[in-house]
Amino acid sequence: MELESRLNATPGSVRPGGRTAKVRTAVLEATRDALVADGFHALNLDRVAARAGVGRTTVYRRWGSAPGLVADLLRDMAEQSLPAADTGTLDGDLRANAHLVLGTLTDPRQGPVFAAVIAAAACDGECAAALRGFYATRLETWSAVAVRGAERGEIPAGTDAVEVLRAVSAPLYYRFAVSREPLSAADADRAAAAALAAARAGAYAPAARGPERAGDTG
Amino acid sequence: MELESRLNATPGSVRPGGRTAKVRTAVLEATRDALVADGFHALNLDRVAARAGVGRTTVYRRWGSAPGLVADLLRDMAEQSLPAADTGTLDGDLRANAHLVLGTLTDPRQGPVFAAVIAAAACDGECAAALRGFYATRLETWSAVAVRGAERGEIPAGTDAVEVLRAVSAPLYYRFAVSREPLSAADADRAAAAALAAARAGAYAPAARGPERAGDTG
Repeated sequence: MELESRLNATPGSVRPGGRTAKVRTAVLEATRDALVADGFHALNLDRVAARAGVGRTTVYRRWGSAPGLVADLLRDMAEQSLPAADTGTLDGDLRANAHLVLGTLTDPRQGPVFAAVIAAAACDGECAAALRGFYATRLETWSAVAVRGAERGEIPAGTDAVEVLRAVSAPLYYRFAVSREPLSAADADRAAAAALAAARAGAYAPAARGPERAGDTG
Repeated sequence: MELESRLNATPGSVRPGGRTAKVRTAVLEATRDALVADGFHALNLDRVAARAGVGRTTVYRRWGSAPGLVADLLRDMAEQSLPAADTGTLDGDLRANAHLVLGTLTDPRQGPVFAAVIAAAACDGECAAALRGFYATRLETWSAVAVRGAERGEIPAGTDAVEVLRAVSAPLYYRFAVSREPLSAADADRAAAAALAAARAGAYAPAARGPERAGDTG
């Protein structure tokens, strides 16, 4: 599938070579720097062009606006995202994913980039669509680990593989972007263990009724 | 405990009466309106004062800045938040909580307010601290349902009650604020069922090793 072949390619290998690629790399790098330094609302095409050493007209023609820069940055981040782990067990793969998310969100450079694009998505529709696309790509890629886990009988057949991966990421992003709480390795281990336990119990299986249904007040 | 007595009070009953309370109510209402209409970055004290029919000097003196308005709005939202459900089962209580979160995030007025304060927290430290305080209050209040569930033997003794409630909210907020995916009643039911299944499996219990630990690549 074209998406996976792109994502499993070594970083950069899918980009067209030559000057166009070099310009894009420099502009997206300058965009990252600007987001880390000042956030989305201070993102300015003139300053990005200057920082990248690229002509203003090129940046305006090719990216058009600050949301255009963020959207292309998110496309690039999706293209560069790592292929799914394959440790031999679903538990190992989910914990590898949880620690990859933890490492990204707590990285002094990557963390502020994610905070900025999440804020940008709350303020701008183009950024929101691009962020949705980024996570759709990433969840699709990593859902392979839950598909393999189901094939090995580690979780019920027909489990929603993407939902299992959402469940690993959600508690980490909740602390990072919503409740603004610190993140630790214990949070990553707990997120992976909880997602696996819920998947085993059938919470992500078709027509899952989940555990007992007494006292429904939903 | 002072926090719970405040939170279990009927809405508004904890506010001082009289003009000061009326001014605060009008200003926070105008702040909500402004956030829904234009988001945090367009929040302007002069326009809030005009919309609230309150003197500019009063608003500047009492709230000082746009983050000051957002921080007080979040304190008010915490004061007004509903007491925890008590349906008689942890499953019923967790699903009541999940559907309360779903109803808030999908409400045409409340949803945009939460999107705006989450974005504000990504851009401003005072807003971030206030948002952290809001969720600390809300999670503390609702953690009572997991404490009661453990006392009834529905989940292991010593389960981290706050973590169980974080687990219910996290998948809903992840879709709302991060992956920008639609939210449905099925998502709320799944979030509650998954949190309960993980809690039963010991994923939130002390020294939880979670399910099997083979293939650790974390």
